[in-house]
Amino acid sequence: MRYYATILVALVVNVASLLAQSNSTLKSVRTYREANEPAIMREFREFLSMPNVAFDSASIAQNASFIIQMMKKRDIEKVQLLESGKSGAAPAVYGEVLVPNAKRTVIFYAHYDGQPVNPLEWSRDGKPFTPVLRSGSLEKGGEVIDFPNEKTPFNPENRIYARSASDDKGGVIAILNAYEALRKSGIQPSVNVKFFFEGEEEAGSTNLGDILERHQALLQSDGWIICDGPVHQSGRKQVVCGVRGDVNMEITVYGPKRPLHSGHYGNWVPNPAQKLVSLLASMKDSSGKVLVDGFYDDVVPFTEEERAAIRSVPHPDEQMKRELGVAKPDGNGAYLLEMLNLPSLNINGIRSANVGAMSANVIPTQAVAALDLRLVLGNDWQRQTEKIKRHVQKQGYFVIDRDPTDEERLQHPNIAKVRAFKGYNAQRTPLGHPLARAVVSAVQTSSAEPIVVVPALGGSLPLYLFEQHLKTVTVTVPIANHDNNQHAENENIRLQNLWNGIETFAAIMTMKF
Amino acid sequence: MRYYATILVALVVNVASLLAQSNSTLKSVRTYREANEPAIMREFREFLSMPNVAFDSASIAQNASFIIQMMKKRDIEKVQLLESGKSGAAPAVYGEVLVPNAKRTVIFYAHYDGQPVNPLEWSRDGKPFTPVLRSGSLEKGGEVIDFPNEKTPFNPENRIYARSASDDKGGVIAILNAYEALRKSGIQPSVNVKFFFEGEEEAGSTNLGDILERHQALLQSDGWIICDGPVHQSGRKQVVCGVRGDVNMEITVYGPKRPLHSGHYGNWVPNPAQKLVSLLASMKDSSGKVLVDGFYDDVVPFTEEERAAIRSVPHPDEQMKRELGVAKPDGNGAYLLEMLNLPSLNINGIRSANVGAMSANVIPTQAVAALDLRLVLGNDWQRQTEKIKRHVQKQGYFVIDRDPTDEERLQHPNIAKVRAFKGYNAQRTPLGHPLARAVVSAVQTSSAEPIVVVPALGGSLPLYLFEQHLKTVTVTVPIANHDNNQHAENENIRLQNLWNGIETFAAIMTMKF
Repeated sequence: MRYYATILVALVVNVASLLAQSNSTLKSVRTYREANEPAIMREFREFLSMPNVAFDSASIAQNASFIIQMMKKRDIEKVQLLESGKSGAAPAVYGEVLVPNAKRTVIFYAHYDGQPVNPLEWSRDGKPFTPVLRSGSLEKGGEVIDFPNEKTPFNPENRIYARSASDDKGGVIAILNAYEALRKSGIQPSVNVKFFFEGEEEAGSTNLGDILERHQALLQSDGWIICDGPVHQSGRKQVVCGVRGDVNMEITVYGPKRPLHSGHYGNWVPNPAQKLVSLLASMKDSSGKVLVDGFYDDVVPFTEEERAAIRSVPHPDEQMKRELGVAKPDGNGAYLLEMLNLPSLNINGIRSANVGAMSANVIPTQAVAALDLRLVLGNDWQRQTEKIKRHVQKQGYFVIDRDPTDEERLQHPNIAKVRAFKGYNAQRTPLGHPLARAVVSAVQTSSAEPIVVVPALGGSLPLYLFEQHLKTVTVTVPIANHDNNQHAENENIRLQNLWNGIETFAAIMTMKF
Repeated sequence: MRYYATILVALVVNVASLLAQSNSTLKSVRTYREANEPAIMREFREFLSMPNVAFDSASIAQNASFIIQMMKKRDIEKVQLLESGKSGAAPAVYGEVLVPNAKRTVIFYAHYDGQPVNPLEWSRDGKPFTPVLRSGSLEKGGEVIDFPNEKTPFNPENRIYARSASDDKGGVIAILNAYEALRKSGIQPSVNVKFFFEGEEEAGSTNLGDILERHQALLQSDGWIICDGPVHQSGRKQVVCGVRGDVNMEITVYGPKRPLHSGHYGNWVPNPAQKLVSLLASMKDSSGKVLVDGFYDDVVPFTEEERAAIRSVPHPDEQMKRELGVAKPDGNGAYLLEMLNLPSLNINGIRSANVGAMSANVIPTQAVAALDLRLVLGNDWQRQTEKIKRHVQKQGYFVIDRDPTDEERLQHPNIAKVRAFKGYNAQRTPLGHPLARAVVSAVQTSSAEPIVVVPALGGSLPLYLFEQHLKTVTVTVPIANHDNNQHAENENIRLQNLWNGIETFAAIMTMKF
């Protein structure tokens, strides 16, 4: 029963009285944006045209200097790269605006690196780093259209398709233009505003801790606003007070030392793909429950406040089933949001030899699976990967962390290379924290509909680092449409989400805090 | 017990008295070859430099005209392309040499098309269509060396690495040079010699039946000699009287309609890779036994003659375990050759999203497996694929042969696209057939060691077509080294095997028949 013991906690700030105050700040921001859409889009397109796969240092540097230019153009001060001190690591881009008499300081975070791309998987009309405009969502028949000329307004239902359009260059653009809209409208932020754009979030933020540690003085603040991830599936704006942790693993299973003709050896030489499928099949039942011993043991239940916060959350389950073509979700009837607050085991990819036109009649030499383990409060990322390793051993495997030697191959019928990469744990900021309360109010003023407040999101960010290195808190404010294909081919952002994002961050920059 | 009821039948012609007669024909052939190694290799390298992936029509045509040139250079007559009449189909290349007073006619077959290539999988020093010479087997540390100059003899332990070096351009080269060696030595073949080089064997010989049917008159003969596949693992020459049938299948399992962030949906949206591994795992037990209902039911046991032929076959099992790094083969202790005479189910490849550097934290949209089913006498290829389809249905899948509609996705929790490609059945020529007896004797005279005679090999060729369309028989005489990486990356042929092949075919062209 432990499996469902953790109950979803999410809170809708259902304050009809707060419904979209036509306050003058937001009016000014909107007017500025409407007048400057072509310029904003020109800058965004240029930004998206720069490859930004984490680890690709040259491209990362190009992106960083583009951000520096955008900041300098906006008269942001102390613009600089924050290095981790480790050679080859991607720098963060920093800038700040100090406001006379402001008592509080808030740092706005987004990241400018992106997930790996396989251009072959992208739609025929699109390439990862050649942004295209579509009339709507590709999955719903959205077609490639020309970018409008300078005089024609953008249709807000149009979407830009490119790697990082939503994750997370859209965040950088929204934050910088929120500030610019205030500045050009002559409105002073209520807090000192600092900007921090990370360059290796998609590579696991390996050096973020070092950057925070080395630049503690510069990074003094009363809290961070993290712009990453999607808004609620209902389309409502969302404030998120926690995230799951994350760790990746890779399992390789071995076949013959050289690839073999399946006719001459099939039935006798064990097939590594067959072994891997049996091994992976042993890890989950048909309802999606993870069968690895102790997998759900460490979960810390939500507090009473978080639990009490369960109200009229708009459950998107039926909508998502239709939208995604899912007849029966995993979890034996549990809500999506319930399942997102349990640790998970996901096959990110699996590969052995080839399929399709490249397929040949062979016994492959190895089979590889990439796994993603999400963690909730209480899970430790290293402990969680050890559970997987022990499970593989229990299935009769000799487990190593490198390729086997010839001797080992002859000694052990089943050999698995199990690698765990660097991961991080989950994090939650209490719903009652002053920053959380201030942000929730501010975002609500920028929205005509009740916003959704979630104690913890399914996605992951290394937010524990801010606690650990800066003793501060974070609140996450995503802006992307939920169907943005984040991390996958055909990533996109709906223009109205970008426009909303600008208003959201302007509201936060001028919040009562 | 049916699983092991089919006993291996293989015969070693253990006739010490036949040991390598130094007959004058073979001496002449060897002398010719030794004197002409550089020229033979020049021609072979040029041939291997031509891409020849089946379906690549332009390349296939280039290969065919190269073969025509080689034949014309040898004064072979009636050299021509034999078309199937189907546009886009690869032609066979034909030629003949009629011998005054010869009573019998034998057609020599090899194929000039090759398996698909993934250049990324090939060794760093080699490309599929840039033949390189290695000092020995890559797996045993063989290094790339220069081709010797015209004066230096080739080391017979060297190997040529390139796609089709062994499968099956080596066959074309061996057959044509066997004839050339006889011709240049003034030795007349004992039979009319016809040449037939197929251009789409690796694509399933889809049009071979039509070619045989349309050119029946030209293709009159007393039997075919098929050069394809490897010699015995012991290195001994081998004559094969039968082959397994073969049919490929592809199974696609579906996830969400668009790729999803594993953090925002993992645990709730079912992962298609997880479904596929469970489905494939259900098909085999840990000993490699296929669990699909009725999979072994139709097998026709060997005849008494074939069974009786089991003698002192040199079982290569221990050698192969060491060589391939296999601690425990499938089959619960059965011999390799036993297992090759059972129907098989092999995963040729499996793929869902990406692994390694391209891997991302996603729930993939689909997962695909390519399967290879080998068939023995009694199996019908269509019936065998139906068993797999029924198995998938029994696992709770809605089985279709195309992508699902949106409605179907919402109706059926588990959907599999199961495609069966065109296949063919197994074939056997009786060991007592006059052609089989004549070939076995001839090949034995060309070998210092006892040759191995096998009633049926594990590999597949569509030999039933020759029975069906020409009412004739086939005997298969392979020449490649067993560790030639056929169908995979780093395909190669050992030079001594090529030289032996020339002598083998010269012996058959001059056999008593």
